[in-house]
Amino acid sequence: MTVFRHTPLYRFIEYCERENMIDKSVLDCGAGGVMPPLSLFHSYGYKTTGIDINHEQVVKGNHYGVTKKQNLNIQQGDMTNLPFDDSIFDFAYSYNSIFHMMKSDIKKAINELERVLKPNGLLFVNFLSVDDFRCGEGPNLGNHQYEQMDDTPVIHSYYDYNEAESYFENFEFVLKERRIIERMYENERIEQGFIDYILRKKQI
Amino acid sequence: MTVFRHTPLYRFIEYCERENMIDKSVLDCGAGGVMPPLSLFHSYGYKTTGIDINHEQVVKGNHYGVTKKQNLNIQQGDMTNLPFDDSIFDFAYSYNSIFHMMKSDIKKAINELERVLKPNGLLFVNFLSVDDFRCGEGPNLGNHQYEQMDDTPVIHSYYDYNEAESYFENFEFVLKERRIIERMYENERIEQGFIDYILRKKQI
Repeated sequence: MTVFRHTPLYRFIEYCERENMIDKSVLDCGAGGVMPPLSLFHSYGYKTTGIDINHEQVVKGNHYGVTKKQNLNIQQGDMTNLPFDDSIFDFAYSYNSIFHMMKSDIKKAINELERVLKPNGLLFVNFLSVDDFRCGEGPNLGNHQYEQMDDTPVIHSYYDYNEAESYFENFEFVLKERRIIERMYENERIEQGFIDYILRKKQI
Repeated sequence: MTVFRHTPLYRFIEYCERENMIDKSVLDCGAGGVMPPLSLFHSYGYKTTGIDINHEQVVKGNHYGVTKKQNLNIQQGDMTNLPFDDSIFDFAYSYNSIFHMMKSDIKKAINELERVLKPNGLLFVNFLSVDDFRCGEGPNLGNHQYEQMDDTPVIHSYYDYNEAESYFENFEFVLKERRIIERMYENERIEQGFIDYILRKKQI
């Protein structure tokens, strides 16, 4: 079984497993790419659904699933306007993905994730923090939002430690983790900053 | 396959796997207890060895292995004086364990971990940080070391962010993560603080 580099999702899956459900469905927003973490959930018996804004990433994600004999069920879609009915997923997450939008869209996406989760369903989402070494790089779109050059220009939105709390009024608090990672990248010691949340959709 | 709650060890095992070794040996210091993470390494094909100061924890750890049909090879021992030859392990770690000693002993234990690692071998170790909600609790033994009551009185040593760097002169830097976790515990929102390292033993 492959070890995924998406370490915080191991904690999320551990929290999901504690719910002791027999049938368990999970949605990944930003699910595509060469090593889709939905594969990990599939290995643990989850019924997986994913969306990704980028068609090429959708193809790569599903292809990875095929090599593992898994139907990951990733489709093209926009997480600010999810193509799903209300209250249908037990679990949902967006890992290293939601912060590639403007904060106004991030708020919309959180509302959509809440809408499609069942009551008591668990959400994992992470944000870039203002501690990150790239915060401040590139054209400034205001409010710690920058257009930064990866392979193409990509928005990166950075958060103060408590800035995202207001998005979660319809959730109960489960866990929040501030992570500041120093590691080697192209012979430089870089510092990345993240704020991770696990939340439970309120019952009412 | 069980999901372990020792989330940072998933990152460590991912770094270990990147070494692409055929035979791979790993040592856990503080290896005992009801859900020993050596079981995870065993599942990924590692030859496991563990030590724990507490006989009862040794028994529990090995018993868990038996239930999984794994010989985890955990024995009683003191990590400040490891009962192993020099340079015999590819990987070594101590997770949520080393900080239950005085800092003078922690330094000895790091030196021992370095001694038993092969050149280029990888080490994971984590420390409690002074951000932790329990830092300051209990009889003060000086220098952020406290005797705190768990089931019995247990030493907890807390570190400033860069305080442990001096222990690692014979290692190359790979990764350092500062983690501040807020979570619910007995209906209270508590804040835990950790500093995790992955390091590589220098070749000379």
